[in-house]
Amino acid sequence: MIKAGIVGGTGYTGVELLRLLALHPQVDLSVITSRSECGLPAADLFPNLRGYVNLAFAEPDPAVLKACDVVFFATPNGVAMGMVPDLLAADVRVIDLAADFRLKDPQLWQQWYGMSHACPELLAEAVYGLPELNRAAIQKARLVANPGCYPTAVQLGLIPLLEHGLADTQYLIADAKSGVSGAGRKAELGMLLCEASENFKAYAVSGHRHLPEIKQGLRQVAHTEVGLTFVPHLTPMIRGIHATLYAVVEDRSVDLQALYEQHYAREPFVDVLPPGAHPETRSVRGANYCRIAVHRPQNGDVVTILSVIDNLVKGAAGQAIQNMNLMFGLAEESGLESPGLMP
Amino acid sequence: MIKAGIVGGTGYTGVELLRLLALHPQVDLSVITSRSECGLPAADLFPNLRGYVNLAFAEPDPAVLKACDVVFFATPNGVAMGMVPDLLAADVRVIDLAADFRLKDPQLWQQWYGMSHACPELLAEAVYGLPELNRAAIQKARLVANPGCYPTAVQLGLIPLLEHGLADTQYLIADAKSGVSGAGRKAELGMLLCEASENFKAYAVSGHRHLPEIKQGLRQVAHTEVGLTFVPHLTPMIRGIHATLYAVVEDRSVDLQALYEQHYAREPFVDVLPPGAHPETRSVRGANYCRIAVHRPQNGDVVTILSVIDNLVKGAAGQAIQNMNLMFGLAEESGLESPGLMP
Amino acid sequence: MIKAGIVGGTGYTGVELLRLLALHPQVDLSVITSRSECGLPAADLFPNLRGYVNLAFAEPDPAVLKACDVVFFATPNGVAMGMVPDLLAADVRVIDLAADFRLKDPQLWQQWYGMSHACPELLAEAVYGLPELNRAAIQKARLVANPGCYPTAVQLGLIPLLEHGLADTQYLIADAKSGVSGAGRKAELGMLLCEASENFKAYAVSGHRHLPEIKQGLRQVAHTEVGLTFVPHLTPMIRGIHATLYAVVEDRSVDLQALYEQHYAREPFVDVLPPGAHPETRSVRGANYCRIAVHRPQNGDVVTILSVIDNLVKGAAGQAIQNMNLMFGLAEESGLESPGLMP
Amino acid sequence: MIKAGIVGGTGYTGVELLRLLALHPQVDLSVITSRSECGLPAADLFPNLRGYVNLAFAEPDPAVLKACDVVFFATPNGVAMGMVPDLLAADVRVIDLAADFRLKDPQLWQQWYGMSHACPELLAEAVYGLPELNRAAIQKARLVANPGCYPTAVQLGLIPLLEHGLADTQYLIADAKSGVSGAGRKAELGMLLCEASENFKAYAVSGHRHLPEIKQGLRQVAHTEVGLTFVPHLTPMIRGIHATLYAVVEDRSVDLQALYEQHYAREPFVDVLPPGAHPETRSVRGANYCRIAVHRPQNGDVVTILSVIDNLVKGAAGQAIQNMNLMFGLAEESGLESPGLMP
Repeated sequence: MIKAGIVGGTGYTGVELLRLLALHPQVDLSVITSRSECGLPAADLFPNLRGYVNLAFAEPDPAVLKACDVVFFATPNGVAMGMVPDLLAADVRVIDLAADFRLKDPQLWQQWYGMSHACPELLAEAVYGLPELNRAAIQKARLVANPGCYPTAVQLGLIPLLEHGLADTQYLIADAKSGVSGAGRKAELGMLLCEASENFKAYAVSGHRHLPEIKQGLRQVAHTEVGLTFVPHLTPMIRGIHATLYAVVEDRSVDLQALYEQHYAREPFVDVLPPGAHPETRSVRGANYCRIAVHRPQNGDVVTILSVIDNLVKGAAGQAIQNMNLMFGLAEESGLESPGLMP
Repeated sequence: MIKAGIVGGTGYTGVELLRLLALHPQVDLSVITSRSECGLPAADLFPNLRGYVNLAFAEPDPAVLKACDVVFFATPNGVAMGMVPDLLAADVRVIDLAADFRLKDPQLWQQWYGMSHACPELLAEAVYGLPELNRAAIQKARLVANPGCYPTAVQLGLIPLLEHGLADTQYLIADAKSGVSGAGRKAELGMLLCEASENFKAYAVSGHRHLPEIKQGLRQVAHTEVGLTFVPHLTPMIRGIHATLYAVVEDRSVDLQALYEQHYAREPFVDVLPPGAHPETRSVRGANYCRIAVHRPQNGDVVTILSVIDNLVKGAAGQAIQNMNLMFGLAEESGLESPGLMP
Repeated sequence: MIKAGIVGGTGYTGVELLRLLALHPQVDLSVITSRSECGLPAADLFPNLRGYVNLAFAEPDPAVLKACDVVFFATPNGVAMGMVPDLLAADVRVIDLAADFRLKDPQLWQQWYGMSHACPELLAEAVYGLPELNRAAIQKARLVANPGCYPTAVQLGLIPLLEHGLADTQYLIADAKSGVSGAGRKAELGMLLCEASENFKAYAVSGHRHLPEIKQGLRQVAHTEVGLTFVPHLTPMIRGIHATLYAVVEDRSVDLQALYEQHYAREPFVDVLPPGAHPETRSVRGANYCRIAVHRPQNGDVVTILSVIDNLVKGAAGQAIQNMNLMFGLAEESGLESPGLMP
Repeated sequence: MIKAGIVGGTGYTGVELLRLLALHPQVDLSVITSRSECGLPAADLFPNLRGYVNLAFAEPDPAVLKACDVVFFATPNGVAMGMVPDLLAADVRVIDLAADFRLKDPQLWQQWYGMSHACPELLAEAVYGLPELNRAAIQKARLVANPGCYPTAVQLGLIPLLEHGLADTQYLIADAKSGVSGAGRKAELGMLLCEASENFKAYAVSGHRHLPEIKQGLRQVAHTEVGLTFVPHLTPMIRGIHATLYAVVEDRSVDLQALYEQHYAREPFVDVLPPGAHPETRSVRGANYCRIAVHRPQNGDVVTILSVIDNLVKGAAGQAIQNMNLMFGLAEESGLESPGLMP
């Protein structure tokens, strides 16, 4: 059994990690920390876990964390980077669900996250935890930077196009829509039911922190800097991301449907839908899948890719467990077998 | 492996049965029928099941159904009673998720369901499938009448009071609120998002079909006819029932909290919350639990019981699987281990 | 033109007052105060008001407020009582939408609101602003205590029964369901979309502050202390209250439908629905109506009254304007003519 | 007073016309027809109208309709074209809220709507009722084709760019999101609350009927055929359209904010937000406004315009009344004065 710890378990990625790890057959959850809720049984905060998780939130104790095989960070940005070096030194493997290790360039990190990086020397070693892109590296990693939710949906949708050099890399558009849980479990006015339900809006059009992360990932497969317009929107639902991706693909000789199907043929968690389909976010609610459909409307130049995930699962906790499975040589689907909850 | 068939699998209880049975370790799903969707792969209708259920909907074929060990009916009321006698004769065990075998009195059935009963001779044998009330009988049953969703929530909330003779049986009130999936997957104007969301209303105040079912069940434990006012309401959400139950309990010497905790101490799927708690429907979303809290507001005569279930799980498909597990001597929790999905 | 001021206009009752007063033909809105948002144009906070309200939030300035004909308090409980005596002394009429002047008994106020009352000498003079109960007194009032949202729905539903001495006053039950805006515009975890949508729960079963207010009002018409069980619930929608009211009425000779229709025949904002109807909260969305239906299920002893309002209109801002109209001799419907928004 | 009739008033645009016309000071609503609901009081179907609309649905009677000054068609596509010639011959002015007269090319109409046009000779005369584009022509029109909801939001967002020749007309993208009421009041499975809530999906990516309508409108201002990719999405809310528009504008010397503000400076119902803003659909709920924001993310080539309307108001019934006001020389805002309902 793998001894797992969670630092910062009171948010939505925290409860989702707990829900999934509670049923994982090869994991023994040994500690979950929270300074603010110290002493509170996790199942008091998240009553769906009554009978599943008997741990109470504890103060972060380095000794306890160092006794784990793996530690998940479900903390605000900037927390993990202060604790990771010690854990790695103690031979603990780390999966950070925040952004601390996602960007390779510490200057870029400082520019977008507003603080200097505490351990830039680890950025090169950290593996960006998108298994469909970096599976082999993840298997050997000590430190995995779990991707952001938008970046997961957008990259999985665009990678096949870019890897084959089919798209004009200067005019990529990602129009992305997220459920409200993407904003986290924070008492903010804008996320109240009375503000966010029966409403639709874009936000952060001038620049969202996931933009440099997506561009870094796409550059890796395109072998060139990409021009990407990324517009996130807030959708009145709890879970789900729908990325509508537009790319100019002048070559009409290529069978894009076949290309996508072949690209993801062996991926356990990427499901390319049949031609003409429209993936629904609810089809992946609570599940670790990314469902993708490929369109070329009116047989024009502008290819349209539709990509959906559950932001808390494939976009956060589920992908973290997928990464853990890879790091520890377990079956990649272990603990992630459940289908989506529908309706 | 138990060979299971589903008759009428295109509704919400159908897809929920598929979702749960697909992961059940001792069940082999061999057929799912639908006249209207004959030939369509089930995963086309319910894309969450892609990769889990490879069956297509088939015409109901008696020979195929008779080769099953158990057949679930997820059909409209009145369908099962036409097919059950033949299946029982073929030694197939049957779990009916509709109302055909819930009422013991065929006159009462005809009065509330508007048709004469096709096999009244089976009503005495049919076991009302509320495990917390009839576990021993279910274990030996050939034919189980799976309870309605409201009746499950209401009865589990009131049984401890009535079994101990504590409540005035003439003034019981069940104010029940249901998510919209309780109305089934039917194209009805009133269930459109534009009609049912951002709205709350009572319905069927003059009399709902679940009223005689609840009264029959409560009479069994109260040993007397009960006076029950049952008012159902439509709530703007997909899943969940919240029953708020009012009973006059003049005796203040009894510790109701202890009574409920002891009554359900060994039940795997009934969870009595600590004093002062308010159960939330989302805590059981997708899970087979009933969560209950006991209150005596202002220390008055009127005891208030709060009882929540997921209408599609403990109120339908999950309870059906719980019954199957009992009928076939499996672990009662088999296939029902997942916690609720929250948020 | 009546010069009106609003103290504390950043909450949901504040914006609703602004929306309604902006179109009121006899009102000139002269000031709206907020310490926290001082200087911010109201239309920046509430963009629906762009082009309608050109005021910015201002620091509360006694001189400015004293120059008003009427001041509305849309403040947290306990604020108005500190400012009202001075305003009355300056001949300003006051309508308090908070609870400061609702309870006649200062001890009771202290018990439920946790602070001693700052001007108990005004409690006798303050008129409880339910026009259907106290119209004549409101017309002459200097100080009106605008009723709470639950108390409005519950009292309008029960008053005809109690006034005619038909119900057992010891066993009244009010099972009330509210949209989330009833909790106000506050950054609280429990009111986040991710916590409150797709969920239903009771709260404050042990005792809610609206309980003594309702009991005080019902005592006035019943001429005796009433026994009331009041259970509020949180419903996943923005606006609307649905009160389901249960009363034991043994006398079956009375025509309750006729009684209710006659009782409210001349009321401009109470609409008794035809027999058998189920009022929907959406039918009063944004409108000042209370819609009521009267049922006697199964012709039993327990009469069931269904009463719906928009908690922000008839339950708050609309009723406040109705009271203002009465106080200043305007047409009672002035500024309140719009029907509900449906769908 | 203008005598108005409505043909086909049982859908969402019908009830919205009723709601708005009921308060219009210069309109007398004389008839509302529906074959399916003949005899039913309109307020029974839409209880928000109790006390406002006393008409019952009537069989369409040519004599009665010909006695009107104006007739609104809120019918399915293809109905109006069968009745309009007779009405025009009787000097009745007509506003069609369906698509029958929106496309100038009858071949194109047949291609997209699957039926041949019944009166192609009227297509040249019919005025496309977007006041911001065709105000003068609307004022003199006998027959107005009220624009579709998506086309209203998209065209108002793109017209300033195209009129000034700033955008590459071959790579326009309209990523549009609509509330469910855009699908009409029809009993369709996909529009059930249980299917459409907590879900987000694109639909009709291969081609939506509003595409040729938008292209026709944009061609008028661009003076060239435009290349447009239009992807509609279904959003889990009742009302609202949010169009996110992408255009390549290489010229950085132009002040787009000023351009938009000047273009719409005299428009009563188009509101250009300040720089950096993100319009919310709820800010126009129930109101006739279009709110627009202009962005150039990262100061790149791709300009992003955000445009929101209420699909039932500015996208249907409100715009129809705005057109009627213009046709009859009334104040353009008459009957459309209410601000949005928020929250």
